[in-house]
Amino acid sequence: MKKIKTAIVGATGFTGSELARILINHPVFEPAFITSESHSGKKFSDVHPQFFGLLDLHLVEAAELKNSGAELLFLALPHGISMDYVKSLSNTSAKIVDLSGDYRLSSPEVYNHWYTRKHIHPEGFKEAAYGLPELFSEQIKESKLVANPGCYPTSAILGLYPLVREGLVDLSNIIVDAKSGTTGAGVKSNPGTHYCQVNENFNAYGIAGHRHTIEIEEKLSMYAGQTIKLQFTPHLLPVDRGILSTIYAPIKDGVQSTARQVKEVFRAHYKSCPFIRMRETAPGIKEVRGTNFCDIFPTYDPRTGNFIVISAIDNLMKGAAGQAVHNANLMYGLKETTGLINVALKP
Amino acid sequence: MKKIKTAIVGATGFTGSELARILINHPVFEPAFITSESHSGKKFSDVHPQFFGLLDLHLVEAAELKNSGAELLFLALPHGISMDYVKSLSNTSAKIVDLSGDYRLSSPEVYNHWYTRKHIHPEGFKEAAYGLPELFSEQIKESKLVANPGCYPTSAILGLYPLVREGLVDLSNIIVDAKSGTTGAGVKSNPGTHYCQVNENFNAYGIAGHRHTIEIEEKLSMYAGQTIKLQFTPHLLPVDRGILSTIYAPIKDGVQSTARQVKEVFRAHYKSCPFIRMRETAPGIKEVRGTNFCDIFPTYDPRTGNFIVISAIDNLMKGAAGQAVHNANLMYGLKETTGLINVALKP
Amino acid sequence: MKKIKTAIVGATGFTGSELARILINHPVFEPAFITSESHSGKKFSDVHPQFFGLLDLHLVEAAELKNSGAELLFLALPHGISMDYVKSLSNTSAKIVDLSGDYRLSSPEVYNHWYTRKHIHPEGFKEAAYGLPELFSEQIKESKLVANPGCYPTSAILGLYPLVREGLVDLSNIIVDAKSGTTGAGVKSNPGTHYCQVNENFNAYGIAGHRHTIEIEEKLSMYAGQTIKLQFTPHLLPVDRGILSTIYAPIKDGVQSTARQVKEVFRAHYKSCPFIRMRETAPGIKEVRGTNFCDIFPTYDPRTGNFIVISAIDNLMKGAAGQAVHNANLMYGLKETTGLINVALKP
Amino acid sequence: MKKIKTAIVGATGFTGSELARILINHPVFEPAFITSESHSGKKFSDVHPQFFGLLDLHLVEAAELKNSGAELLFLALPHGISMDYVKSLSNTSAKIVDLSGDYRLSSPEVYNHWYTRKHIHPEGFKEAAYGLPELFSEQIKESKLVANPGCYPTSAILGLYPLVREGLVDLSNIIVDAKSGTTGAGVKSNPGTHYCQVNENFNAYGIAGHRHTIEIEEKLSMYAGQTIKLQFTPHLLPVDRGILSTIYAPIKDGVQSTARQVKEVFRAHYKSCPFIRMRETAPGIKEVRGTNFCDIFPTYDPRTGNFIVISAIDNLMKGAAGQAVHNANLMYGLKETTGLINVALKP
Repeated sequence: MKKIKTAIVGATGFTGSELARILINHPVFEPAFITSESHSGKKFSDVHPQFFGLLDLHLVEAAELKNSGAELLFLALPHGISMDYVKSLSNTSAKIVDLSGDYRLSSPEVYNHWYTRKHIHPEGFKEAAYGLPELFSEQIKESKLVANPGCYPTSAILGLYPLVREGLVDLSNIIVDAKSGTTGAGVKSNPGTHYCQVNENFNAYGIAGHRHTIEIEEKLSMYAGQTIKLQFTPHLLPVDRGILSTIYAPIKDGVQSTARQVKEVFRAHYKSCPFIRMRETAPGIKEVRGTNFCDIFPTYDPRTGNFIVISAIDNLMKGAAGQAVHNANLMYGLKETTGLINVALKP
Repeated sequence: MKKIKTAIVGATGFTGSELARILINHPVFEPAFITSESHSGKKFSDVHPQFFGLLDLHLVEAAELKNSGAELLFLALPHGISMDYVKSLSNTSAKIVDLSGDYRLSSPEVYNHWYTRKHIHPEGFKEAAYGLPELFSEQIKESKLVANPGCYPTSAILGLYPLVREGLVDLSNIIVDAKSGTTGAGVKSNPGTHYCQVNENFNAYGIAGHRHTIEIEEKLSMYAGQTIKLQFTPHLLPVDRGILSTIYAPIKDGVQSTARQVKEVFRAHYKSCPFIRMRETAPGIKEVRGTNFCDIFPTYDPRTGNFIVISAIDNLMKGAAGQAVHNANLMYGLKETTGLINVALKP
Repeated sequence: MKKIKTAIVGATGFTGSELARILINHPVFEPAFITSESHSGKKFSDVHPQFFGLLDLHLVEAAELKNSGAELLFLALPHGISMDYVKSLSNTSAKIVDLSGDYRLSSPEVYNHWYTRKHIHPEGFKEAAYGLPELFSEQIKESKLVANPGCYPTSAILGLYPLVREGLVDLSNIIVDAKSGTTGAGVKSNPGTHYCQVNENFNAYGIAGHRHTIEIEEKLSMYAGQTIKLQFTPHLLPVDRGILSTIYAPIKDGVQSTARQVKEVFRAHYKSCPFIRMRETAPGIKEVRGTNFCDIFPTYDPRTGNFIVISAIDNLMKGAAGQAVHNANLMYGLKETTGLINVALKP
Repeated sequence: MKKIKTAIVGATGFTGSELARILINHPVFEPAFITSESHSGKKFSDVHPQFFGLLDLHLVEAAELKNSGAELLFLALPHGISMDYVKSLSNTSAKIVDLSGDYRLSSPEVYNHWYTRKHIHPEGFKEAAYGLPELFSEQIKESKLVANPGCYPTSAILGLYPLVREGLVDLSNIIVDAKSGTTGAGVKSNPGTHYCQVNENFNAYGIAGHRHTIEIEEKLSMYAGQTIKLQFTPHLLPVDRGILSTIYAPIKDGVQSTARQVKEVFRAHYKSCPFIRMRETAPGIKEVRGTNFCDIFPTYDPRTGNFIVISAIDNLMKGAAGQAVHNANLMYGLKETTGLINVALKP
């Protein structure tokens, strides 16, 4: 197949280098342009030495993208900055996968509230598809702009969707207790990402106020027939990669279930989803490390009346770059798994 | 003060060496006998080289304890084995702190059910005090046999007690999502404790069936005026030490609260407890590493109506050896904090 | 190209699963048989859950290999056991890459001395090529039996070969100070591989007596025109993967050099070696993690008169499974890099 | 004994908090003043939350030290800044332990060369004792200003001193291959200390040019009767604490030795040193973690003619704060071990 000239906008972060790591072996999307405002002129492999000899492209400023001929753009930029690029590209033919949070929510108003800033490109919300292929593949295929989901929401929504869709749970008391590796905190050096702070440590953060809460709630509410409010608590794990969400949802009054039945419900919903692996035992994050899989283990505790779902992803892959390439595969009519099948690096 | 001859029964495990680490600097309890069936004859420092030059006692078989003159015994043995020792010592004057699970529950019947074995010393249950000093200090002071609490229950009970005691929570849907360092899995080598399995990994285990569930439920039910069933899920952290419990409890119908009020409730309950630190921000496990502190951060989310409590301990200290020495201090009328005040090793 | 039926003999170890990880995406070598004596009947993915849905082959006993039609065999077995298999397969047409130490040395006598056991298949030494492609590609191409090098020797020999070949160093005082991740200690659970022993720790082992010493010495001596004795000290790193060797060699009397010149010497020797990356700064092991690269940084210290070479590999890839596939590529006339080009998983 | 008012100058770094951790349990030195220019006004426990409830002193600016009545000052400041303080305090009666590199070398000229800056207080060199108690206890006792040794030099000098002193080694080719935990890189956040850079990584740095080289060379040269040049290579370990130095020194022509004899030589030299532990097996860094011990394992390899010495310390304790308190104990005529005997936190 003809190669598609692809740009990675924002080279220095972890999602930028992860996109490049995937594209190196992708048969169609060719990493032709990589941008960085702070490092333009340097080679990509100067910033990420693991690419030495494999991707030695010189970094360019984003302004040079204009006449680059890049057809597909992955925006690996912070929220609040990404929308500038999307807006300026909105009357070109380029297809965009935006990895920031700028177009994930239902409206500019909701965005303004949870991201405490004013969105400068409100018309983008109408065009943007929410890039969770297991739920929205039809919209993604038709869209020029895909809002790639947050890492935590990917893990939480996929762990709850079949239960909510089937009306099995009491929606008033869902708990998502999520734990993420440190790449989730970003590449920026600060006291919270210093090795000696993270190593041998573990803590909760963003209690009762993390932005990903609304993203999870909005998408699930679409299938619930009502507005869901749930409790989402993220934690920081002393590992590089991986999110494990432990999800608790009480069974709805009048519903009966067993551990076996709930597994069947999940299996039925995800039977044609190549990146969902319905596990028979609780997965660890290392079993998906470096892959685009979401491993799910659902069960039911008859003693307490709770559904418990464990959902494991690699936050940089299924939670970011891998899902972005999955979305681009859909946008270009490629096989969903193109360039994305590999075994976890374990150990 | 006169030294008290102290024995550590069971030298090879992590709690055995942690007890020795504390007793080295304890002004009263002198580590005079350390037993090991598998390593008798060797020096303690041969088994735990960090003690080289500091505690080079030769290990003896437990049978030699009989005429040793040891007044205080710490049993650092697996459950099911510990009760043999307690039974055989029951008509001596020795004071015992049992770190196993053999006497923590309310009755032999409950034990038999959750530990799936038959208790051989049912009369011990009447004598044993539950060694959580913040709740049971009076019983501990009077007792010759203290059942040292489980690590997870210590962290969970302390995080829930004020809420339950004050009748603030809907008891039907309490969630304890707990995460423990690998010392909690014991010293035994097996595929699950291999470095390459644990490192960069994270997973849940014992879902809906862990033994510590009933220990938490029984103690809290004493203060609830009813039988509590709660959801307890442990996870394995890639760190040596530390337990962080994230606890969710919905507010009871008709009760009003704020984040500030719930902090006041906790502060009032724990004001005379030297090892409880009421934190103003969510603690990380590294802030209590190597110490006997339990750091607690309670809050209330008015958006969802949930209390959320973070509770952090070192599982080998407040969750085992430190609490055991605290109990012994009480049993001997010493100041509670004797030998137990130090700063966390951070970094 | 026609697929080649491939067997992995020895499924449970780290090299076994690493071979499978590579072969999943190899266009020619098809993992058709995987053996395990202890787990036969189970699925490969039961033993290594990261393969769930990707490689669910049932494990068979090695005895079933006989009539399997497997043309290429990777032996991922301990030394001392591997030679039994090689011997029994010696009159078949199968091509073998042996990942054990059984055929790496120059003679059965040297083997018997350093491995302290009697070799049962001495005639194998004549047939076996030493599978370090950068030095022995011609022999490898012609051979039916390749002895895949040890992990430490791979890193040490590649770091010293140009210096020795060019006669630049005083051969009487070469030091190889090497540090390896814990996968190098094998999959077997023992006190030395317990997470709580390795984590936050670091130590030397095998001082002045490790078996890999003679392997390094023998191969380098071939190019030195004399017998080399060198000092090799391995250390255990608290990471899963990676070997970094820091190599010291005094300059030979009468030779002149500079840091720049020594880099040129290395570059010239390795210019057609696709897996050697001559780095301009000292590499870290994470920059080769999960890849078959050997990153080398040589320099010269005029103050002390020493050459210093840093050499970094992934012990499971370039130090084991990756190099084994590289060797098989050569044995089958494939392009050297077939199935082996990927970017390090960093972070 | 009467308490001595003690100041820690420089609160935010790792050595500042480590000093406080020791002083909390020191019977004589009372941490009465802690300074920070950037955090003055905050509580010490705001900056280091592990001290919550244990040391809640308000931080003051260094200027307030003048009239504070502090008799003993620990300067936990970067080099180049420390000398300003020492100079301004030089005509007071305060005793100073300077943990920076500003007074460790033999002369301002050597300092200017290796630290590439001009020393502003050259007269300080005459007053300063080099604070390695095992070699310089007499000078330390008499001095008002002690230059606390570098972490690497502590480990290297103690591992080489007996060999050099006894004239056993060929001084022309000593190698010190040293590996340090990440606290050695300082508290400052930068790309090199980001968790995701250090974790699962390992690399050499400062090859052929690290400042600690000259510190090691100068002190050893005092005992060698000649100027020593040696090769020192530091590496960064993915752990918080610990330095392990692997030291290689060829035996001198005409000297005979055995592994047993070299152990005796070390034992004899260090027999009255309470913090040197002569180990019978190679120590790991975890066996000294959180302690002031230096564990040493020397041996001799008759095959190669090299002495090999393993030396393990905690870089924040014996390599910084612990040794600083040891020095202060000597300066005040206290027992050397006062406040410094504890067991390593392992696990």
